[in-house]
Amino acid sequence: MAAVFGGVEGGGTHSKAVLVSENGKILAETDGPSTNHWGMSLSGGEQKDAIEKIICEMKNRFPKLSINYYITTDAIGAMATASDRGGIVLISGTGSNCKLVNPDGSQVGCGGWGHMMGDEGSAFWISHLAVKTVFDAKDNLVKPHHDVTHVKKVIENYFQVSDLMGMLPHLYRNFQKSHFAGLCQKIAEGAKAGDALCQYLFTLAGRVLAQHIVAVLPKAQQALLTGEQCLPILCVGSVWKSWELLKPGFTEVLAELESTPAFKGNFYGYNLLTLRQSSGSALGGAVLGAKSAGATVTLNYADNAQVFYKHSFQSSQ
Amino acid sequence: MAAVFGGVEGGGTHSKAVLVSENGKILAETDGPSTNHWGMSLSGGEQKDAIEKIICEMKNRFPKLSINYYITTDAIGAMATASDRGGIVLISGTGSNCKLVNPDGSQVGCGGWGHMMGDEGSAFWISHLAVKTVFDAKDNLVKPHHDVTHVKKVIENYFQVSDLMGMLPHLYRNFQKSHFAGLCQKIAEGAKAGDALCQYLFTLAGRVLAQHIVAVLPKAQQALLTGEQCLPILCVGSVWKSWELLKPGFTEVLAELESTPAFKGNFYGYNLLTLRQSSGSALGGAVLGAKSAGATVTLNYADNAQVFYKHSFQSSQ
Repeated sequence: MAAVFGGVEGGGTHSKAVLVSENGKILAETDGPSTNHWGMSLSGGEQKDAIEKIICEMKNRFPKLSINYYITTDAIGAMATASDRGGIVLISGTGSNCKLVNPDGSQVGCGGWGHMMGDEGSAFWISHLAVKTVFDAKDNLVKPHHDVTHVKKVIENYFQVSDLMGMLPHLYRNFQKSHFAGLCQKIAEGAKAGDALCQYLFTLAGRVLAQHIVAVLPKAQQALLTGEQCLPILCVGSVWKSWELLKPGFTEVLAELESTPAFKGNFYGYNLLTLRQSSGSALGGAVLGAKSAGATVTLNYADNAQVFYKHSFQSSQ
Repeated sequence: MAAVFGGVEGGGTHSKAVLVSENGKILAETDGPSTNHWGMSLSGGEQKDAIEKIICEMKNRFPKLSINYYITTDAIGAMATASDRGGIVLISGTGSNCKLVNPDGSQVGCGGWGHMMGDEGSAFWISHLAVKTVFDAKDNLVKPHHDVTHVKKVIENYFQVSDLMGMLPHLYRNFQKSHFAGLCQKIAEGAKAGDALCQYLFTLAGRVLAQHIVAVLPKAQQALLTGEQCLPILCVGSVWKSWELLKPGFTEVLAELESTPAFKGNFYGYNLLTLRQSSGSALGGAVLGAKSAGATVTLNYADNAQVFYKHSFQSSQ
């Protein structure tokens, strides 16, 4: 019987599973509900104890499901779907996270600590910053960079409140991160319609997302910086749908690297990629699971990821 | 029978109650457990609906307890204990809040939105900033202003964790604001022992607390700025025990006002006061309650508050 490798992308809102053959052919795929912390290739799955617990539970509940289990984060799963030569994964969905994977498999992370300790550049962060800007303007604590009228209206509409006091239950008693983060889409709409504050919030998000790249870059092996693909940055999560809004801040921060002594001449540029495959990090999860079991699944990476933005240093765009 | 006025200071951890006569004599006082949202003169007591609910419930449960009820915030209760001529109340305890009370009774606030949307300069904020600084240094996301070694050790000791990953339950599943804020005292100890980062965190707290004053000051009536007492700032909450640590940042921000065109010559200086009376804002609550019932309680304010720091502009300290 030919070996079959399964991959599961467990998410806070929905999940995906694939079965692949050794030659990378997808034999079956399916969607499911939230499986966070009860699936593979999921955020938060880095803690050893939690991983052991999950594997033990899987073996107990489904003794015939799989011979081997391998659990990693959504970031690493996504990377394995896009490439076997490493790169940087930069997630900006409800939360955010960044992971550098070197060609030799070594990893360095930045962020991924959740909304109480980070999530910079994520939909939650953008939403929170929008609300905070309006609170601070009302309080005269911080002068807003741009008029808050539109953003205030968007917040009141989205949360169905008539004043800022009404926001308190949404921040505390009834706080739901994913609902709160949903405001971000309205901010994106405002930005596209030309509101300066909405645009500014996305510029700030672009900047801080790029700062994650700057944070992990000193640990990148030379081959990643000067390879044929320049530095591949795999962008995962729904905030990247607003790339045009993130772009001014994002490109500004990375442009500063060009003149940084440590990188000057050693860093040719970067490519931003997105996963093409609907199976996302589940496919990479199957590849990594196979590898951990001593087998090899061969993917055609060109089918899985596509470049949506290229920037070469020391040459015109 | 002589009228008796009761005041309750409801708090998140403990509460106080006093009974006073019309001449301000304390007839009885007592301590009790947490009564947040179920007492008077408490934080969060500004929402009209909540206030009406509480009063209604009090009348139902204790029909003979009181003829009149009046509910306000801890800030306003504290102010009424210290003075009947207004001033600014600046709270920095577990959370933070600032309220300007003008001589005519009009009020302007800044902050008081809780840890998700502010609490700047509070014990929670200082604790959070300490943890965030260590996370950011580890991630190389933000370079710390000072070595994080000591603060990291303090965090690991306080939360009984061996690495930053261990902090996650304290930030999410088992999050308790008051416990988290308790780290602040350890940071204060570190600052007193000479650790530069601990000192810097308090300098930042001092700055942002002073920015609350700057925020409400444009709404201050002239009499508050040029009165005999200069501008009275009533400092409430345990973070003020570390005034010497807050001082560099706090005084720096207010010194900038001296040269601000809007205030130049119209602002003689400020006095920082603390409540002397152990009954704190409960006493002021009784005064305000009496006033709302058409009566007057006369306090000897000099007995209730004392100046712990004076700064006069246009003259040497």
